[in-house]
Amino acid sequence: MQVKDFKWEKGMTVRSMVDKFQNLGYQSIELSKASEIFVKMRKDGAKIFLTFTSNMVTSGLRGFFAQIIKYGMADVIVTTVGGIEEDIMKAKGEKFKVGRFDADDVELHEKGINRVGNLLVDVESYMNFEDCIRVILDQLYKKKKRWAVSEMLKEIGLMLDDKNSILYQAAKNDVPIFCPAITDGSFGFHLYLFQQKHKDFIIDVVQDFGNILFSTSYDDKKGVIALGGSISKHHAILCTLLHGGASYAVYMTTAHQSSGSVSGATTREAKSWGKVKYESDIATVIGDVTITFPLAMIKAFEELAEEGLLKNES
Amino acid sequence: MQVKDFKWEKGMTVRSMVDKFQNLGYQSIELSKASEIFVKMRKDGAKIFLTFTSNMVTSGLRGFFAQIIKYGMADVIVTTVGGIEEDIMKAKGEKFKVGRFDADDVELHEKGINRVGNLLVDVESYMNFEDCIRVILDQLYKKKKRWAVSEMLKEIGLMLDDKNSILYQAAKNDVPIFCPAITDGSFGFHLYLFQQKHKDFIIDVVQDFGNILFSTSYDDKKGVIALGGSISKHHAILCTLLHGGASYAVYMTTAHQSSGSVSGATTREAKSWGKVKYESDIATVIGDVTITFPLAMIKAFEELAEEGLLKNES
Amino acid sequence: MQVKDFKWEKGMTVRSMVDKFQNLGYQSIELSKASEIFVKMRKDGAKIFLTFTSNMVTSGLRGFFAQIIKYGMADVIVTTVGGIEEDIMKAKGEKFKVGRFDADDVELHEKGINRVGNLLVDVESYMNFEDCIRVILDQLYKKKKRWAVSEMLKEIGLMLDDKNSILYQAAKNDVPIFCPAITDGSFGFHLYLFQQKHKDFIIDVVQDFGNILFSTSYDDKKGVIALGGSISKHHAILCTLLHGGASYAVYMTTAHQSSGSVSGATTREAKSWGKVKYESDIATVIGDVTITFPLAMIKAFEELAEEGLLKNES
Amino acid sequence: MQVKDFKWEKGMTVRSMVDKFQNLGYQSIELSKASEIFVKMRKDGAKIFLTFTSNMVTSGLRGFFAQIIKYGMADVIVTTVGGIEEDIMKAKGEKFKVGRFDADDVELHEKGINRVGNLLVDVESYMNFEDCIRVILDQLYKKKKRWAVSEMLKEIGLMLDDKNSILYQAAKNDVPIFCPAITDGSFGFHLYLFQQKHKDFIIDVVQDFGNILFSTSYDDKKGVIALGGSISKHHAILCTLLHGGASYAVYMTTAHQSSGSVSGATTREAKSWGKVKYESDIATVIGDVTITFPLAMIKAFEELAEEGLLKNES
Repeated sequence: MQVKDFKWEKGMTVRSMVDKFQNLGYQSIELSKASEIFVKMRKDGAKIFLTFTSNMVTSGLRGFFAQIIKYGMADVIVTTVGGIEEDIMKAKGEKFKVGRFDADDVELHEKGINRVGNLLVDVESYMNFEDCIRVILDQLYKKKKRWAVSEMLKEIGLMLDDKNSILYQAAKNDVPIFCPAITDGSFGFHLYLFQQKHKDFIIDVVQDFGNILFSTSYDDKKGVIALGGSISKHHAILCTLLHGGASYAVYMTTAHQSSGSVSGATTREAKSWGKVKYESDIATVIGDVTITFPLAMIKAFEELAEEGLLKNES
Repeated sequence: MQVKDFKWEKGMTVRSMVDKFQNLGYQSIELSKASEIFVKMRKDGAKIFLTFTSNMVTSGLRGFFAQIIKYGMADVIVTTVGGIEEDIMKAKGEKFKVGRFDADDVELHEKGINRVGNLLVDVESYMNFEDCIRVILDQLYKKKKRWAVSEMLKEIGLMLDDKNSILYQAAKNDVPIFCPAITDGSFGFHLYLFQQKHKDFIIDVVQDFGNILFSTSYDDKKGVIALGGSISKHHAILCTLLHGGASYAVYMTTAHQSSGSVSGATTREAKSWGKVKYESDIATVIGDVTITFPLAMIKAFEELAEEGLLKNES
Repeated sequence: MQVKDFKWEKGMTVRSMVDKFQNLGYQSIELSKASEIFVKMRKDGAKIFLTFTSNMVTSGLRGFFAQIIKYGMADVIVTTVGGIEEDIMKAKGEKFKVGRFDADDVELHEKGINRVGNLLVDVESYMNFEDCIRVILDQLYKKKKRWAVSEMLKEIGLMLDDKNSILYQAAKNDVPIFCPAITDGSFGFHLYLFQQKHKDFIIDVVQDFGNILFSTSYDDKKGVIALGGSISKHHAILCTLLHGGASYAVYMTTAHQSSGSVSGATTREAKSWGKVKYESDIATVIGDVTITFPLAMIKAFEELAEEGLLKNES
Repeated sequence: MQVKDFKWEKGMTVRSMVDKFQNLGYQSIELSKASEIFVKMRKDGAKIFLTFTSNMVTSGLRGFFAQIIKYGMADVIVTTVGGIEEDIMKAKGEKFKVGRFDADDVELHEKGINRVGNLLVDVESYMNFEDCIRVILDQLYKKKKRWAVSEMLKEIGLMLDDKNSILYQAAKNDVPIFCPAITDGSFGFHLYLFQQKHKDFIIDVVQDFGNILFSTSYDDKKGVIALGGSISKHHAILCTLLHGGASYAVYMTTAHQSSGSVSGATTREAKSWGKVKYESDIATVIGDVTITFPLAMIKAFEELAEEGLLKNES
């Protein structure tokens, strides 16, 4: 493969741009590989584990994740609880705002605004979430006392009515959502308050380990799309590993491997799992996921749509 | 404060070096601030939340964390399950090795070796851990059926006999260890297998939210030392926030704020919590924690020891 | 401005995607600002300083830079000598290849291949460059003995015949190319060998400081587009500063400000120049330039073309 | 080599700490390797190229660099012109201050203060530098009309009287200082103004390429210590490469290899030079140089001093 001079053509599509990326350089090349692997894992019928961190749900990627689930590009979701809270908040009509990285944090605090990078969330949105979560927990408790996390999240998804919601689309399309640290957020606080009144209310995280394990089998081909790091990435890798490893792996992150963290661990490690045999089936893309992921996935969408391989697309 | 020419003097101590760092530049200045804040939070009687990720337990920092707990520099620990597994493995005599970042991962896999950055863990160590964890779960189950995570970890700590063990020192010194994603590792798999045989065995993560919340009170001054990012950092911030915010905060990480992740969120945000009033009480240090943390903490140890403020030190 | 759910639409163009980026999050928002500033600086008639490092010329961005010059989006270029060498090599027909970041460097060395990240350059290409540069220096020397660097580069540009060449397009369109470290490469070695034979051959870097200074005036509005860091970025900032500062500034880089380097310095500093008054006129985008720059510039191209503001476009 | 639990001992020295780093993890291991290579290159009589960027001279490392030159740990220096300007400013008594990364840049501008990360330089210091540089250029011009950069810098070093000055110690100890982009700073502006009055005043950068080339021979063993990236690092690598490659190489930087820049290029590339044969002779340390470099070099100083191998040390 040769490096080619990149040139703009009027009306250039995302597909055409990412196509040119394979001859461009550095991370654009890795991004074009990622896009090809997305297509390969789908065509090969692999069970796709999609993981993301909650800051991505704070951003507008939330609607894109819902679209991905609808189109059948994710069979299992792993995420952190902040993303689940915010997906519900948005489904209930809360609006997040665009701010600045160098905002005056003292001033924001006085105005009742929380900052997440250059995005802003009103404290009021969290208060509205609290009202809403209490009602939800009451309804869940009436159904049964002991819930595996993914069962609970599916039930909540069915209560929502928003096509851009991750929980809604996952529930509709039978895609389980796993959240190994369900208490690490406002949700956890409300689970605690609820349990104080109902000592027999149990969130069973151990049962959910079985659920994610049996969401695929040893014989399934498995693919991992890990956006960002944290336990969402680790949990998906762990579970595919216990079933013989993933055949396809794409990591998109801003972290580097130099500190030994799982966030920065590369797909080269995937070779040590003993399952990924071909260089062409793994890619690590360094960069902000709000830019790199839509580029790579849209190219894959265009190709798969052309061949009629996107579910629910018409 | 002026910049001063840094000069080596023969036999230079860590204390003297970090002292000079306040006049040196960039992250060395931030590191010297972090060290001062460690001393301040201790002298002010703040409840100190220490958080770290499991890759730091893979490294030799594990013994340093145990020492910190023993000396009373941590009142609450928050970490991820990998670190707990490896602390137990090391307490049982498993040895980890130093390797290379650019190791041949296929070759390592064939030899049964897992790579964590430039450190190596034999697969055999994990198998030995499995034998050991089964016995531990049997013993726990005999005591009671429903365990909050931190209660379980204390019980395990009491079963160990290793002064360099985090769980051992925490148990001996009544420092609770919280792990909001207890199933995200080999431990989770074994909890699952055990629960298959004992359906009434329950890991109660919700109860533990109450435990971390009441590990301090609204009236306590609180300090956060967050090493690396992930849910350990987030969980400590969340819990101090629910009690009116932290008075002191030091973040040490390799992540940057540009992607909006909690791993890269800075202490400037701490001002938006509404509790940290003085610039001198917060610091963010960018760099590998295996270098920056020992430097900053040892300088604090030396000063606190001089004033007789280190517990169990003699 | 609100965060909006990002959604793919079939056949999505780059323009439409970057348009949606303003409501997406983190670096995608900063990227959409950068794109708007590109349009603003052009419409406002600002003199645009475009700076890039040589690794970007190794990549396929070389053709894109040539296109940018042709379309009148750059009035002054500042770069490093490696980029100039490789632009000439490519104009002479040398082909660079796509490789891998984790290539076996010993094996590459034995095959006579140099690695630049995941791109590969044959040693033979450098040898062909040497043959070519000797002829060029002979021709220059016949014309005169003392050359300012930018004069020399213009003369070389006129000798080339490749529409994708930066030097060619710059020469044709009267855009000066400044290279403050002209000896830092193979080119420098050949200048030295030539000067050994012709002691009166002088490369006058001091004269070129005047040339870049008078490439604009105090009264001109000035814009800086700095891709990557290094002296190219610093030189452009320095020269606009000596003329009262830039009115517009976009920095695209992978470096962070934490180490105090000019590579990671942010546009917030631009405010300290005393010229940039409005937040809307500066942007810093963190990420690989092979991805972020084409996205932002193509969106600007589409808008400017629509209004007939691209030179030589038809 | 095994991972060992890191433990503090009262009065711990830097030497003892870095010694323990070899069993600690991640970048601390790489740092301890770097320290060993510093000792090896000295004992092996290698010609040592030390490169640094100007932000490091802004910091207090300036005095440490002077000390390194005095002790014979650097045979050739390569740097950028900002560092040279600031070395002279400090030698003339200017004081730089410690500030904050999140300073109010508009306020600083109004006060006549320039910010470099968390360090501050008064505009007045630059004005004093200008007065001083005019006198220096007059004196140089009286001696001769055509100066290679390194000859000029040696002459300036001889005019200074400050043991903490890089230029002073280099001049006294016959260590040449190369600066391939001498015009990229305030110095360049004054060279230009001076040349306007004296057209026959010539700064000969081409001649200096020969000077750095012949500062070592093909037969010399060569070592490179590259702090930060930029052309200083590139120039040293280029020149050792033209003489058969370096036998030892330590890179300390905050940049990563993912964007293909020379700043982030690793020492693994050094193997492709064909000279570095042993893994033990190269190291890349990721982190802020104000922390990592003093640690690694002080450990080497202590060992070399013990064996009487530090020049001028008594």
